[in-house]
Amino acid sequence: MGIKIEMQWEVGWSDSLQEPPKRWVPSVVPGAVQLDWARAENWGHHSYGDNWRQYEWMERKYWTYRSTLDTVPAEEGQRLVFVSKGIDYHFHIRANGRTILSQEGMFTPVELDLTEQMDADDGRIELEVVIEPAPKLEGAEGRSQAAHSCKPAVSYGWDWHPRLIPLGIWDDTYAEIRTQAHIAAAEVRYELDADRNRAKLTLDARLNGAGTGEWVWKMADPEGNPVFERRIPVAGDSVQAFHTLEQPRLWWPHDHGDQPLYRSEVYLSGTGGDEGEAEVHRQAIGFRKVRLVVHEGGWKEPSQFPKSRSLPPITMEINGRTIFCKGTNWVNPSIFPGTIDSDDYRSLLELAKAANMNLLRVWGGGIVNKESFFEQCDEMGLMVWQEFPLACNLYPDTPEYLRVLDQESRSIVLRLRKHASVVLWCGGNELFNAWSKMTDQSLPLRLLNANCYELDPGTPFLMTSPLEGMGHGHYMFRYRTGEDVLEAMPRASNTAYTEFGVPSPSSVEQLQSFIPEDELFPPRPGTAWESHHAFNALSPEMWLMQDQLDHYFGRYETLEQLVEYGQLLQSEGYKCIYEEARRQKPRCSMALNWCYNEPWPTAANNSLVMWPDKPKPAYYAVQASCRPVLASARIPKFVWHEGEWFEPELWLLNDSPEEVPGGRVDAYLTLESGERRLLLEWKYDGMRANENRRGPTARFRLPASGAERMKLELVVAARPELNSAYTLLYRASDRPSPPKRSTLNF
Amino acid sequence: MGIKIEMQWEVGWSDSLQEPPKRWVPSVVPGAVQLDWARAENWGHHSYGDNWRQYEWMERKYWTYRSTLDTVPAEEGQRLVFVSKGIDYHFHIRANGRTILSQEGMFTPVELDLTEQMDADDGRIELEVVIEPAPKLEGAEGRSQAAHSCKPAVSYGWDWHPRLIPLGIWDDTYAEIRTQAHIAAAEVRYELDADRNRAKLTLDARLNGAGTGEWVWKMADPEGNPVFERRIPVAGDSVQAFHTLEQPRLWWPHDHGDQPLYRSEVYLSGTGGDEGEAEVHRQAIGFRKVRLVVHEGGWKEPSQFPKSRSLPPITMEINGRTIFCKGTNWVNPSIFPGTIDSDDYRSLLELAKAANMNLLRVWGGGIVNKESFFEQCDEMGLMVWQEFPLACNLYPDTPEYLRVLDQESRSIVLRLRKHASVVLWCGGNELFNAWSKMTDQSLPLRLLNANCYELDPGTPFLMTSPLEGMGHGHYMFRYRTGEDVLEAMPRASNTAYTEFGVPSPSSVEQLQSFIPEDELFPPRPGTAWESHHAFNALSPEMWLMQDQLDHYFGRYETLEQLVEYGQLLQSEGYKCIYEEARRQKPRCSMALNWCYNEPWPTAANNSLVMWPDKPKPAYYAVQASCRPVLASARIPKFVWHEGEWFEPELWLLNDSPEEVPGGRVDAYLTLESGERRLLLEWKYDGMRANENRRGPTARFRLPASGAERMKLELVVAARPELNSAYTLLYRASDRPSPPKRSTLNF
Repeated sequence: MGIKIEMQWEVGWSDSLQEPPKRWVPSVVPGAVQLDWARAENWGHHSYGDNWRQYEWMERKYWTYRSTLDTVPAEEGQRLVFVSKGIDYHFHIRANGRTILSQEGMFTPVELDLTEQMDADDGRIELEVVIEPAPKLEGAEGRSQAAHSCKPAVSYGWDWHPRLIPLGIWDDTYAEIRTQAHIAAAEVRYELDADRNRAKLTLDARLNGAGTGEWVWKMADPEGNPVFERRIPVAGDSVQAFHTLEQPRLWWPHDHGDQPLYRSEVYLSGTGGDEGEAEVHRQAIGFRKVRLVVHEGGWKEPSQFPKSRSLPPITMEINGRTIFCKGTNWVNPSIFPGTIDSDDYRSLLELAKAANMNLLRVWGGGIVNKESFFEQCDEMGLMVWQEFPLACNLYPDTPEYLRVLDQESRSIVLRLRKHASVVLWCGGNELFNAWSKMTDQSLPLRLLNANCYELDPGTPFLMTSPLEGMGHGHYMFRYRTGEDVLEAMPRASNTAYTEFGVPSPSSVEQLQSFIPEDELFPPRPGTAWESHHAFNALSPEMWLMQDQLDHYFGRYETLEQLVEYGQLLQSEGYKCIYEEARRQKPRCSMALNWCYNEPWPTAANNSLVMWPDKPKPAYYAVQASCRPVLASARIPKFVWHEGEWFEPELWLLNDSPEEVPGGRVDAYLTLESGERRLLLEWKYDGMRANENRRGPTARFRLPASGAERMKLELVVAARPELNSAYTLLYRASDRPSPPKRSTLNF
Repeated sequence: MGIKIEMQWEVGWSDSLQEPPKRWVPSVVPGAVQLDWARAENWGHHSYGDNWRQYEWMERKYWTYRSTLDTVPAEEGQRLVFVSKGIDYHFHIRANGRTILSQEGMFTPVELDLTEQMDADDGRIELEVVIEPAPKLEGAEGRSQAAHSCKPAVSYGWDWHPRLIPLGIWDDTYAEIRTQAHIAAAEVRYELDADRNRAKLTLDARLNGAGTGEWVWKMADPEGNPVFERRIPVAGDSVQAFHTLEQPRLWWPHDHGDQPLYRSEVYLSGTGGDEGEAEVHRQAIGFRKVRLVVHEGGWKEPSQFPKSRSLPPITMEINGRTIFCKGTNWVNPSIFPGTIDSDDYRSLLELAKAANMNLLRVWGGGIVNKESFFEQCDEMGLMVWQEFPLACNLYPDTPEYLRVLDQESRSIVLRLRKHASVVLWCGGNELFNAWSKMTDQSLPLRLLNANCYELDPGTPFLMTSPLEGMGHGHYMFRYRTGEDVLEAMPRASNTAYTEFGVPSPSSVEQLQSFIPEDELFPPRPGTAWESHHAFNALSPEMWLMQDQLDHYFGRYETLEQLVEYGQLLQSEGYKCIYEEARRQKPRCSMALNWCYNEPWPTAANNSLVMWPDKPKPAYYAVQASCRPVLASARIPKFVWHEGEWFEPELWLLNDSPEEVPGGRVDAYLTLESGERRLLLEWKYDGMRANENRRGPTARFRLPASGAERMKLELVVAARPELNSAYTLLYRASDRPSPPKRSTLNF
């Protein structure tokens, strides 16, 4: 709003707040001081090889941005304002040498009236933004250094993220010349009545200066047709207005309906300029009602005395309809959030939607995304579970931390509560587990609950994930017990699987793009493989899991084999977990794998999409397992032996809001390059909306064969879009396991 | 403060807000309209027989109190103020016919300046307080009628409380003439530093009118010696002052230390009258730090993937020391809370302390007690778990209810937060169970968290009891599975037993006092036995449990037998549960039986103390089981047969902060009127503070005997105060069970 002035920035570093930088280099804003310096030094890309190690010293420096403003406001009463949507992390802003703001916190925007700061002689302002070194809890190591601040913990080093702590101006930043009666804020909130037939709208708007004339509040329907227009004479510096909308069209997750977005406009009219020139506050509104409810049957437990509580609710209900949440854990799409733009978000979000996912858990170790992320989620019908920046740490009860968390959380909620897509607030990640040791009594979490209640009571709030009944993990195909994931998962009985992972290496092409050729094969610790998380990430074998590849396939001989083996395990593992979670409906209501994307190219990771937006084979496997309707099989284990009884249990899974007519599933088994055998024909009756159906269990004695793999196919008569297939391993009785090598062309 | 004017009241009823009463009767304030009417009508005591049924119609009437004030303030600038600490429940106050206040909620005090309401001619004020009919949710029955209000639910009828809904002025109420510069509020808050060596005191005080002179803030230590005095010139209508107290003496629960209470005084000095006449705000301050922490070993769970959360904390820590909480559930000591006075509280609180209890859970179905309750708990070192008035209902998310709950909960917290004894806030009773169906997402509970966080963050907050890991129940000696409580409890594994009960009949004398002679024996439904909860209370057999008495003892022949059988089961059942909970330390950290006291004389109940303050035999059993140090036995079951191996496991329980020196326990078994046999000698080593010790398990083959009971005695050498004894049932192999009758003189 107002007339924007683009600013040119330079940046440099020093060793104290007082000392000026010795050297200035051009800066790209938004961005990160590290990238500016690397650009000036002509370093190679930070993701190549071990280049990232060059950046290590930067987290300890004071970085100063500077820019000169010499645009004097043209008219009497106009104001010159500096606006930044985000500066990371603890910073001071100086105008002509005088500190005019000090702030801790990257999620609270800055608006500073500079009009009085202009030099008396020439009207210039030398603006400086000084960034303090990255915050670190004294005596702590790694992510725990972030345990007393609202700085996202992930950049202190994680098992899939190098230690590289971005600093600097990370979101839109500019100066602006504003008219006197600037609209400081205008927000439309609504309440849907119980049967969702009526929305009571409330507009709250506020002026910065004195205004005259009228407030204009208009709304258009999703097609742009006017719905109403209200004009209210300006009186004082604020206004509250109401409107009742009958039969509002409802916003749905994309797999359950449309995403009608109404458009509200608020501006001042009638003073001087014509209305076309007015500052207009626009807001897109999607009407929906969100609840977390107890799963069907949940109130019957516990049945025994001494009687404890029933499990907390985690079943998502949108507009009165139970929605099975299929999705993923979203992490920062870049080490440097300052570089992320709308297009980066779009390609990842479109992939998520195409994968039949309807919910993204935005994990508390990372940033709260920029506006364009949420705007696109609103438009695409993707639900967002938004965490606050707390993860895997013991965040303290101290007044200093609580003050910053209060400020940051209020800023976050006030920014995001207008988005239909934001259906769940959450305090952060794994805070009630042994590695964090926070509890329901921790004041930071009680504060977050209080702020969300005050500012956005219509959206549910969780203190953390997992809560009782919910599950995180496991993160490997073969558990330490020796069981594989196909064996273990049917025994789990969680109300939501909000994290689970199976790792794989990246594609050969991706690996070649960032691992120097002489380190490429065989993979080994001490190389870029390790620093890109293939070894010693959480434990020595993570995330390449060579021991598991050897166990199942024998020693790989080429990079291509290695990649194929790992990606097969990942694909089959994820199919098992997503489909098993769905089979456990209605007790279970959510399946979100860890993790979706990556902040840089990893050598091996649980991700489905390689940095920046390249799907792995497992992406397509998950896409298939998340189809609203599909044929599915519960398969007792992954490795089968000659002479064993193969007993897959057939299912039809339906999470859609539509009935599924009756039909027939044929189950076939093919031993590698062998005959395709019909195991079973299952005629199923029609199913209700959101109803799964368990079918018969096939029983087939595995014959002798030279095969190393076998494939179960489920073929749905006349509905090939529901077909499914599973690849399993086969061992002949005379062949020791694991085999020496495997063919790739199955 | 100021000059109090006692008021004379009359009361009468009508059928609408507008219509005046046709008849006025004298009223005792505080009290209840029902009692005033009964007094005028000369009814018998409401607890005798079925007299309570006479009161039924009263809940549907409008009740009007009236009183005339003709005391004109004597001096210029003085104010006439009406003060009530509590009016139950929805009421309107009129002065000379004009409504000057309407309020819903009995826990928010009233202060009304009446100076401007005085009649222009004669200075009189006709004051009326009109009480609306008891609030009832439309279409609901019983306690659910209270589900949309902050009216305590218990009086709508419970399994141990008749339906009799008190209405009226229930706490101190008077008029007052105040000087101009009246101190509206003065509160001292403190923060203890981490090692509890320093208390930072903050005084916040506020004037009603304009003041001059100085604020005086004095503090004396528990012996009355001055600690400091501050004088601050009055400027504006409020003051904030600070003081740091070094090495404050700490407040402890009575079984862990002293209860030093510092005394603060705040008043205005220097204007006119001498200081002796000033209004003085007094406050007693006990310094303590409270935390709920995770039990020892709790962070190791859960160990399996998918991994859920660790259990929420329920281990009480006071001043850095883990305290095993032994206590009880406190219920209203009267059907009519308006009649309760300081002495009523004192006798019950002294009994609780004498029973070695250190914590009272003030259950959310009842009222929040008057000030004298908390003052005495502060002085006696009894911890209070205070619930808000929500119990066993689905309290709604509606704005109307949330508004009243916000008002009432703020009033409650602001009143009670100054008490050292109040160590835990809780949203209410059994709200996360099937009969309530509230969840962590319920807005009333999120509101309560927010208010407690804002107003009293140093005190832990639970949304309800039970939470995960905690247990409520069972409430009978013999479970429906056929197991007795001795068999069942060792298999339970809860972090806290915050309710459990074993019922018994009241004493013969008590029964005779309220059951008409012709109904007294044998007990049967349709008599005062039933309306006093011996039959059809929760289920047909509750709470007399004739089926269980018959099962264990055969059919009773006299009232004395009936009472003795039931009281034996209650005593032995409670001993088992309290001692078993203590044996399960440190996983378990709390044992609170349901319930302590009664609102009226019951025929049978889980209570330990009969109305108003008469201990049952089980009281003394619990007193013994709650001794800080005692010998104890885990006994596999209650009924033993000839030829069976009797195998009690010996323990020494120590919840005290003291070491226990080594010694010897001798275990003896006596078959009724038979020989006392030594089963085992156990030499135990010294134990640390708060350490239990499991000892050996005796093994003894039960001989033939004519006995019907047997007694296990644990005799501690040279420390008879640690001795324990357990009565069990014995069956000879040739005698069918149950026996026809039992002797009483064992």
